[in-house]
Amino acid sequence: MTTTDRPPARPAAADPRVDVPALEELLLGRYADLRRSARAIVADPDFQKIEGQPVAEHRERVLAQLRRLESEHDVLRAFPSRHGGSDDHGGSLARFEELVAADPSLQIKAGVQWGLFASAILHLGTERHHDTLLPDAMHLQVPGAFAMTETGHGSDVASIGTTAEYDAGTQEFVIHTPFRGAWKDYLGNAALHGTAAVVFAKLITAAPGQPRVDHGVHAFYVPIRDPRTGEFLPGVGGEDDGVKGGLNGIDNGRLHFDHVRVPRTHLLNRYGDVAPDGTYSSPIASPGRRFFTMLGTLVQGRVSLDGAAANASKMALAIAVTYANQRRQFAGGTADEVVLLDYGQHRRRLLPLVAEAYAATFAHEELLAAFDEVFSGRGDTPEKREDLETLAAALKPTSTWAALRTVQTAREACGGQGFLAENRLTGLHADLDVYVTFEGDNTVLYQLVAKRLLGDYAASLKALQSDRGDLARFVVDKVADAALHRTPLVRAVQTLGDRGDARRSVGQLRDEATQRELLTDRVEAMVAQLAQALAPARRMSPEKAAALFDAHQHELIEAARAHAERVQWEAFTRGLARVEDPGTRQVLTWVRDLFGLTLVERNLAWYLIHGRLSAGRARTVTSYIERLLERLRPHAQDLVDAFGYGPEHLRAPIASGAEAQRQDEARAYLRSQRASGDAPVPEKHLKG
Amino acid sequence: MTTTDRPPARPAAADPRVDVPALEELLLGRYADLRRSARAIVADPDFQKIEGQPVAEHRERVLAQLRRLESEHDVLRAFPSRHGGSDDHGGSLARFEELVAADPSLQIKAGVQWGLFASAILHLGTERHHDTLLPDAMHLQVPGAFAMTETGHGSDVASIGTTAEYDAGTQEFVIHTPFRGAWKDYLGNAALHGTAAVVFAKLITAAPGQPRVDHGVHAFYVPIRDPRTGEFLPGVGGEDDGVKGGLNGIDNGRLHFDHVRVPRTHLLNRYGDVAPDGTYSSPIASPGRRFFTMLGTLVQGRVSLDGAAANASKMALAIAVTYANQRRQFAGGTADEVVLLDYGQHRRRLLPLVAEAYAATFAHEELLAAFDEVFSGRGDTPEKREDLETLAAALKPTSTWAALRTVQTAREACGGQGFLAENRLTGLHADLDVYVTFEGDNTVLYQLVAKRLLGDYAASLKALQSDRGDLARFVVDKVADAALHRTPLVRAVQTLGDRGDARRSVGQLRDEATQRELLTDRVEAMVAQLAQALAPARRMSPEKAAALFDAHQHELIEAARAHAERVQWEAFTRGLARVEDPGTRQVLTWVRDLFGLTLVERNLAWYLIHGRLSAGRARTVTSYIERLLERLRPHAQDLVDAFGYGPEHLRAPIASGAEAQRQDEARAYLRSQRASGDAPVPEKHLKG
Repeated sequence: MTTTDRPPARPAAADPRVDVPALEELLLGRYADLRRSARAIVADPDFQKIEGQPVAEHRERVLAQLRRLESEHDVLRAFPSRHGGSDDHGGSLARFEELVAADPSLQIKAGVQWGLFASAILHLGTERHHDTLLPDAMHLQVPGAFAMTETGHGSDVASIGTTAEYDAGTQEFVIHTPFRGAWKDYLGNAALHGTAAVVFAKLITAAPGQPRVDHGVHAFYVPIRDPRTGEFLPGVGGEDDGVKGGLNGIDNGRLHFDHVRVPRTHLLNRYGDVAPDGTYSSPIASPGRRFFTMLGTLVQGRVSLDGAAANASKMALAIAVTYANQRRQFAGGTADEVVLLDYGQHRRRLLPLVAEAYAATFAHEELLAAFDEVFSGRGDTPEKREDLETLAAALKPTSTWAALRTVQTAREACGGQGFLAENRLTGLHADLDVYVTFEGDNTVLYQLVAKRLLGDYAASLKALQSDRGDLARFVVDKVADAALHRTPLVRAVQTLGDRGDARRSVGQLRDEATQRELLTDRVEAMVAQLAQALAPARRMSPEKAAALFDAHQHELIEAARAHAERVQWEAFTRGLARVEDPGTRQVLTWVRDLFGLTLVERNLAWYLIHGRLSAGRARTVTSYIERLLERLRPHAQDLVDAFGYGPEHLRAPIASGAEAQRQDEARAYLRSQRASGDAPVPEKHLKG
Repeated sequence: MTTTDRPPARPAAADPRVDVPALEELLLGRYADLRRSARAIVADPDFQKIEGQPVAEHRERVLAQLRRLESEHDVLRAFPSRHGGSDDHGGSLARFEELVAADPSLQIKAGVQWGLFASAILHLGTERHHDTLLPDAMHLQVPGAFAMTETGHGSDVASIGTTAEYDAGTQEFVIHTPFRGAWKDYLGNAALHGTAAVVFAKLITAAPGQPRVDHGVHAFYVPIRDPRTGEFLPGVGGEDDGVKGGLNGIDNGRLHFDHVRVPRTHLLNRYGDVAPDGTYSSPIASPGRRFFTMLGTLVQGRVSLDGAAANASKMALAIAVTYANQRRQFAGGTADEVVLLDYGQHRRRLLPLVAEAYAATFAHEELLAAFDEVFSGRGDTPEKREDLETLAAALKPTSTWAALRTVQTAREACGGQGFLAENRLTGLHADLDVYVTFEGDNTVLYQLVAKRLLGDYAASLKALQSDRGDLARFVVDKVADAALHRTPLVRAVQTLGDRGDARRSVGQLRDEATQRELLTDRVEAMVAQLAQALAPARRMSPEKAAALFDAHQHELIEAARAHAERVQWEAFTRGLARVEDPGTRQVLTWVRDLFGLTLVERNLAWYLIHGRLSAGRARTVTSYIERLLERLRPHAQDLVDAFGYGPEHLRAPIASGAEAQRQDEARAYLRSQRASGDAPVPEKHLKG
């Protein structure tokens, strides 16, 4: 199956070619113009990270960058037009995601100010807040913290300890931190720059003559510092979170409140309000649904991390693939040394990650469209909101973990050069690291996805039961794996079918429908098995039920991951369908196949155990991947060039052509030495 | 198979217990006392890394630490007693490895000075160098660079461009850098502190009346800076490598030489010498073997990285497991919140890494013993040197990659706290990152191991052929997989055997002999298949042969990895045999089983495809791992406590008990609120 020639570095005349500008346009997506203008900002050295800059200076630099963004650039698109914005939610996020190329600290600090702090005023507040508080937040007159997470509670927001008790006598809320674990923590803008915060606290109030009621988490606008002196206001205290593993351009810190009073009107009251007499009201009756609706307005954080992570992966790959196409090491049978990307292992390390970056980009484009549809109001239904939240919860973990893997692999593929800060890779890893645990810990988000998958499965069973009454058949078709696994009939059949015809088997793997079936079937089977395993929970005590869920937590997470990867594959396949140029379409089909089959290979044991692939066909998965890697080798540079990053974005000396120049100089020297007859005789020639 | 109760956090009265002090002693190994005294040094805050310290200050701090180490502590053990050392090679490395707990920059800068620079003078030089140059290097009068790697050549040292041509007229060597790619690069001590360097260059000389001959890479002692002014000496130039992804306490830099002259006697001439008239001589006739012998003297770098990586993993796990035993998040069916380590996924993330750290520690202890045997001269044969080099080449990649995975997983398992520099994990990742590509790129080292495995296999075939003549039978027994894979007979038999008795199947997996067989058989089968696939290379042109090897490069690397992991498993098993306390032995047996079965699970597809496990037994691998994780849960804290790191080594606030205190305070507050009847009524109770 393997040839004994190395694949060529560039496509031969007869090979398909990638139309790089057209592919770049496709990847930039519907917000291509906005992305391009954001990339122009990133090209300005004043916005670019200085690696190794001391923390204090880095923080001030990023604040100054925010001020320049606000005054000179189009950063308020997501806000209402009556406040000078453009009501453009999707476009606004697309622009912010591109800032990661300048400095992830800039992306995230901008996200804190406009995506969280100002956005909470917009989405959780009402007209009075939009008129009185929003303009200063938008225009950075008030740098603000988004005070949700506490030292004691991150993912479990519902259990935060901060309280906001209404005092009808003064018509004020009393914001209070009852114990150390309830300090607000990890908040951008809290250590230094923030003069106000949106504080999440449990709203406690009593209607006249009624007992005090805890209405759960609500958001309050709380001034925290005197803007002239920078000192904390009375009752407010805090700490600097200090140096972090990355994102050191952001002044993360802690806040605590000792009976700090704010006017009643500082409750951001879109989803819950308190009348002057203390009576609570809400347009959403269920406290649970109200809580999730409030949190749901903040989904844009996850959406933008998904996009920024995909961008970071693409930059890292553009750097590593460019270097791998210039760098030579070890002679490969001839006098000349071999270019890194001509090594099989180097292709194995990098090219599947290129395929993943394509998949993440196409999937993110769909996430952004779903986000824009809901937030623009064009398609704002509870179902679409829920779909959007599930999609964000599926894609954000997938792309942020992929980014860490990709950046790290790229760094290792560049050897010592990869470890120099000037080549960007170590900085990207350090800064992106926290993306996998903030704005929803990835592990927690995947569990949300799994619960939705289980819920949908239960609903479909119910529908089947009532509509057709043939549950038994459905179960036999879809859920029977557990019963079958000792006698893998499906596999036995396949083994016979495969015998003697590896080519047909590869042909099938290349088939879009086969890949879809393999990926889809796995998710469905995993969910069905989980549903079966967890069914007894309904008849158990809450404690035993929790323990049962816990025993299957790993499988829940794996099911969500499988779902998310399938979503990326489908988005890639839809993106591919929009490519018209035949050469580009051919190459991109190989990239999509590489993505799909890499997913299958990663879970090959599952496919074998569950009788979805015979041993023979499982082997062809790996050999077809090897063949795809060889086919894609001549197109590798085109594929990363189409990411559209210029030297002003990558800013990595090793991706600048400097390495090619060094190699050319060294080879010219050796050539001229040989030609001159001046070269010393190698000792081994002498002895031989 | 899974219970519906969470496993307890602490062992019950009837459960086996770990004797923590005894296990700690076992892990500290034969150099326990030396390790303890090194850990006492690490406990001194003056030796500890300050996270976020600016690069320039960090570099000066580490140099000052080196000077203190030299003057106050026992850092010269590896040197000859006649120069004030102790001729204790193994013990010296054991001590250096412990410095990683203070600051990896300190470990590596000490390694540059004593392990590379001074060590090259010792091992590549002869008595005249030991008398004239070694004392100043040992006592840090001359901070030195180890100038081997060039910008253009890292892993392929034999192809470096720097030349050292002998001038018989002046009896000097002329050190010269012919092109940019031949600049020495990434050298510790080169940017600032080094006043001399051991420079590797191609030795060119002509015997009287003979042509000039290139005798390949040799080492030369070259002064580079005026120690009083810090300025480069005439003809020497260089650059600072600048900020790096980590290890910023080391002043890495570049050096280049413009016809710099050094006396003939500055050739470190143990393995090759030049007479005053230009005649070259060497005790090793083959230039290839001479080169590898010279490089082989530097194996201690790889040995110490293996040990330091295992130590970094253990520290990260001590931090993450301690935090996971205190931190609570989300209610688990009862009013109380669940401790992180009581989540199935959290155990899945951390405990297999604990098992890996144990395996790496036991394997490292054996590597250190092999190193000491060779370097002490007690067992210095060519075969033992080769075995030592292969073992180091197998273990260093395995443990350094494991360290990155472990530290990163620990960081994510600690959420936002893990991202704060004060909790050490991000710094450890940043500093350890380059361990996977320096002192031999991991990918290159694994290929060395694979070539040795193939060589041994070929030799064993040859031996069989000449001794017994029954090659055919041997091939049928061991190599037949490729032919068998379409009709997996072995598996079919197992499937029948497993039917209906999952318990027996688990019993077998628990069996030491079964684990050994699974792990060993995989390596042997992979090597045999590779040998078969690569056999045609002998009849090919060098270029085609290189391409054939390249097409199998990924499999070569995977075979080496499988070998290295088996070596770790065997070392773990031997370590286990030395445990006398029955409770400790029981728990450690579970840890060893977890390690072995995690390796099997990671390669489950291979075992299925090659008919080594039936689908049914493959499932029991995973379910037995789950059972082991539950069994080990009550012992998790003991297992990381036995690593022997105190708060002065871990220095992570989250591993200090602060989190337990915060949790206790919060729970006390909520309890007292409930008890007082003062708590507000939750809204959902009201509606219900």
